[in-house]
Amino acid sequence: MGNFIGHVFPGLFLVLYGLHQAIVVSKAVIFNDSLLYPSYPPRNKGRWAMLWKISYVGLLKMMAGSFLIVYEINCVKGGLILMNRDMPPRFMYPKEWQHLTIFILLTLNGCVDILSKNLLPQRCVVLELGVRILTFYVLLLLLVSHTQGTVGVELQVHSLLILVVFLLMLVLTAELWAPGMFHLWLIETFLFLMMGSWLVQAGFILFKPVSSYPWQDDDMSDIMFVTTFFCWHVVINALWLLGIYGFSSFWYRCYHPSL
Amino acid sequence: MGNFIGHVFPGLFLVLYGLHQAIVVSKAVIFNDSLLYPSYPPRNKGRWAMLWKISYVGLLKMMAGSFLIVYEINCVKGGLILMNRDMPPRFMYPKEWQHLTIFILLTLNGCVDILSKNLLPQRCVVLELGVRILTFYVLLLLLVSHTQGTVGVELQVHSLLILVVFLLMLVLTAELWAPGMFHLWLIETFLFLMMGSWLVQAGFILFKPVSSYPWQDDDMSDIMFVTTFFCWHVVINALWLLGIYGFSSFWYRCYHPSL
Amino acid sequence: MGNFIGHVFPGLFLVLYGLHQAIVVSKAVIFNDSLLYPSYPPRNKGRWAMLWKISYVGLLKMMAGSFLIVYEINCVKGGLILMNRDMPPRFMYPKEWQHLTIFILLTLNGCVDILSKNLLPQRCVVLELGVRILTFYVLLLLLVSHTQGTVGVELQVHSLLILVVFLLMLVLTAELWAPGMFHLWLIETFLFLMMGSWLVQAGFILFKPVSSYPWQDDDMSDIMFVTTFFCWHVVINALWLLGIYGFSSFWYRCYHPSL
Amino acid sequence: MGNFIGHVFPGLFLVLYGLHQAIVVSKAVIFNDSLLYPSYPPRNKGRWAMLWKISYVGLLKMMAGSFLIVYEINCVKGGLILMNRDMPPRFMYPKEWQHLTIFILLTLNGCVDILSKNLLPQRCVVLELGVRILTFYVLLLLLVSHTQGTVGVELQVHSLLILVVFLLMLVLTAELWAPGMFHLWLIETFLFLMMGSWLVQAGFILFKPVSSYPWQDDDMSDIMFVTTFFCWHVVINALWLLGIYGFSSFWYRCYHPSL
Repeated sequence: MGNFIGHVFPGLFLVLYGLHQAIVVSKAVIFNDSLLYPSYPPRNKGRWAMLWKISYVGLLKMMAGSFLIVYEINCVKGGLILMNRDMPPRFMYPKEWQHLTIFILLTLNGCVDILSKNLLPQRCVVLELGVRILTFYVLLLLLVSHTQGTVGVELQVHSLLILVVFLLMLVLTAELWAPGMFHLWLIETFLFLMMGSWLVQAGFILFKPVSSYPWQDDDMSDIMFVTTFFCWHVVINALWLLGIYGFSSFWYRCYHPSL
Repeated sequence: MGNFIGHVFPGLFLVLYGLHQAIVVSKAVIFNDSLLYPSYPPRNKGRWAMLWKISYVGLLKMMAGSFLIVYEINCVKGGLILMNRDMPPRFMYPKEWQHLTIFILLTLNGCVDILSKNLLPQRCVVLELGVRILTFYVLLLLLVSHTQGTVGVELQVHSLLILVVFLLMLVLTAELWAPGMFHLWLIETFLFLMMGSWLVQAGFILFKPVSSYPWQDDDMSDIMFVTTFFCWHVVINALWLLGIYGFSSFWYRCYHPSL
Repeated sequence: MGNFIGHVFPGLFLVLYGLHQAIVVSKAVIFNDSLLYPSYPPRNKGRWAMLWKISYVGLLKMMAGSFLIVYEINCVKGGLILMNRDMPPRFMYPKEWQHLTIFILLTLNGCVDILSKNLLPQRCVVLELGVRILTFYVLLLLLVSHTQGTVGVELQVHSLLILVVFLLMLVLTAELWAPGMFHLWLIETFLFLMMGSWLVQAGFILFKPVSSYPWQDDDMSDIMFVTTFFCWHVVINALWLLGIYGFSSFWYRCYHPSL
Repeated sequence: MGNFIGHVFPGLFLVLYGLHQAIVVSKAVIFNDSLLYPSYPPRNKGRWAMLWKISYVGLLKMMAGSFLIVYEINCVKGGLILMNRDMPPRFMYPKEWQHLTIFILLTLNGCVDILSKNLLPQRCVVLELGVRILTFYVLLLLLVSHTQGTVGVELQVHSLLILVVFLLMLVLTAELWAPGMFHLWLIETFLFLMMGSWLVQAGFILFKPVSSYPWQDDDMSDIMFVTTFFCWHVVINALWLLGIYGFSSFWYRCYHPSL
């Protein structure tokens, strides 16, 4: 995963997830609805009613996680072994095992989402949140571990990513005490967008620079521009979020004049 | 902006803003009024009533921001380009682009203030605060990025500025949950005053030392006096704030005996 | 205690304590009971009623602490002296004295538990919590002091332990304000399990590597796998906790159909 | 003040202040009284009633501060000047000016206490707390500045002091929102005791070692024992606090059987 695809694809996944959540949160804010127990329209009462209630996000997480696990295991030539058979034996593929850990947690996340939303007699928000917090906690530890030994542009890029993941972990922990609070959901959505778009940018900076010349680790100017680009992402993502809310507000006001 | 004027002017702007806010907060505390929805005197009912309700602070921010953007773009000889045309191409003007980012956010801040206070059917405090928090978050990142590579007196001066901006960001984030709380407004006002007066002091320390001899980076005594001066600013700004409150209290008690 | 036994035994003690607390918390959550003042079944009214009410956990802490104090003092040849008689005199046995400090606090912890639960006219939760917070605060300081001067794998292993103890201290401090909150108790139980199982793992990593070859301090791969193993502990302990809750829930639902 | 007396005297002052506050808080807890507006016994109604209501603690702070200012100014030979007259001029007496700053704040603290408790028509708790928080904030900054450039035992001793002052600042800031909370007052009292007793200990470690041989900066054992001693102070101060509470409880229960 230490390549262009391995940064851009998860990034796009996170951006799409962030946009989806932005739309959901906007709708809930406009209708003054609950974020945890949204009221569904009553149209689905036929044979397929069950299908409509499935947690699509959970299913998606589970499928994406399973696919990535299979992909990670297969893309290592000779099999993903933990130790080789030399004397003394050495640990093999440290990065791959860390990726695998994250993907297993993503799959677990999806399973728990479906378990809580569809299989349990009533939804258990604490359980869902708990697993999500653990995922980000583990992600944070692994990112810090990934970053050890890097310098210059790569260190700067990953430090900013770690900052976003750290804030996300704080926000998710705060949600444990105020699970349906709009402020926290907005910040969470914003941070997901940031994480996704910055991962995509990181892929371009580290592996496919637009100018086709690699960024210089020993050039102060390049390192400063990493932070500048991050700040532009902050502004652009905030505008996206505002735009989605404004458009949703306009849309629902036109089609639901009773508001 | 890495010169005397570039530190003193923003500093004075912040000090004036802090003093203005100190007066507003004092009045609100004395009259036990709301800080978010102050009750205006009913004298403005004529033709120009609309004008009185315009958010002057927002307008000022927008104008200051726009002016600074134009100034920053024009003061670079040959135009503010992102990359030069050498092979390999290099990023140009890292500091100028970071300043531009902040000024764009300041302008945006003003726009959102006016949008929320004058154009929307009802004021949206969360929106205003959100943009302000983003501004300080970005400012913090850029200051940290600015400081990389500096040493001695310059590092000490900027570290203390970063400390103030960091506390300001914390306070603004806390305001998201308690937007009309007097304690938080007082601390915010104090930190704005600190930031402004310290920026002015930083301009003098770094570019125009009073003794006309530059401060020594390798002299422990000079570096300790940077912190000492900062502490004196803390005390003096606290006394200013107390003085403004005391004077307001005295003034309104004389002219509004009904209090 | 800087050996295999000295890491594995306290670890097992903490794991057992965590499992015991997991069962207690699960039961309280299922019966919607208070965690601080659990309602006992009324069967114990005979001669031995007093015995049933003794705080077994407190007694266990006191006994374990006393035993460890005696063991620590006896396992130093020539007696655990503070300074030798050379000129200049030197402090002796720094690690042993730090262990002794922790064991004394553990004994104190047990004494206070018994004092509060059995001897005082009414239970004083603040006192119990206060002593527990102090214990972890001291433990944190001593761990940081222990870690100074270590590098590589040992530093990484201890840093992760310090992280767990730091989070545990935060959670216990938060409990001071919300002593009977389920979320906090769950997190506390999870962190106790983590601390215990990681101590056991640390014993194996540092003193009895499974491959019988020591881990390499200068191998990036080994240092990354320390974090990876820690993350697996996070996942496994979370599953344990979930399993205990699920099993308790199933058990009580079968035997107490009135639920 | 960088000598034995300069560490032991402020330390003793803080210990006495902590003990006094421990007694006051214990009494308030036992009588379930308010910590901010204690109910005085009605015996003082005569001519000297006014005297009884004076804030003795405020007066003491003011007098101690003034005395220390005079002492600090006089103990510098040739007068406490800010810059000498060489070319280039140099800042003089950095440490002395930092001490002076703290003493001025202590005096200010006392003045504000008296102003709020005796001169204003009603007590202004926010003002008192605000000045106290500023004092500790400034103290923290100056301690960090003092510590720059120290190593070994001195650094370790001062780091632990900074930790206590930092926690004290956090607790005082928290009191701004919950000014009459017993938990916070207990922690504050404990931290004052810690700060005082550790300052006394620091004086002995740095300037008058009991063995009459200085501590070694390059000896790991000595540096570890600094932390160990700090932990013993934690335990002993906690026991002191508990003892004072227990004794007060016993005393008032004997002499006020109506409790």
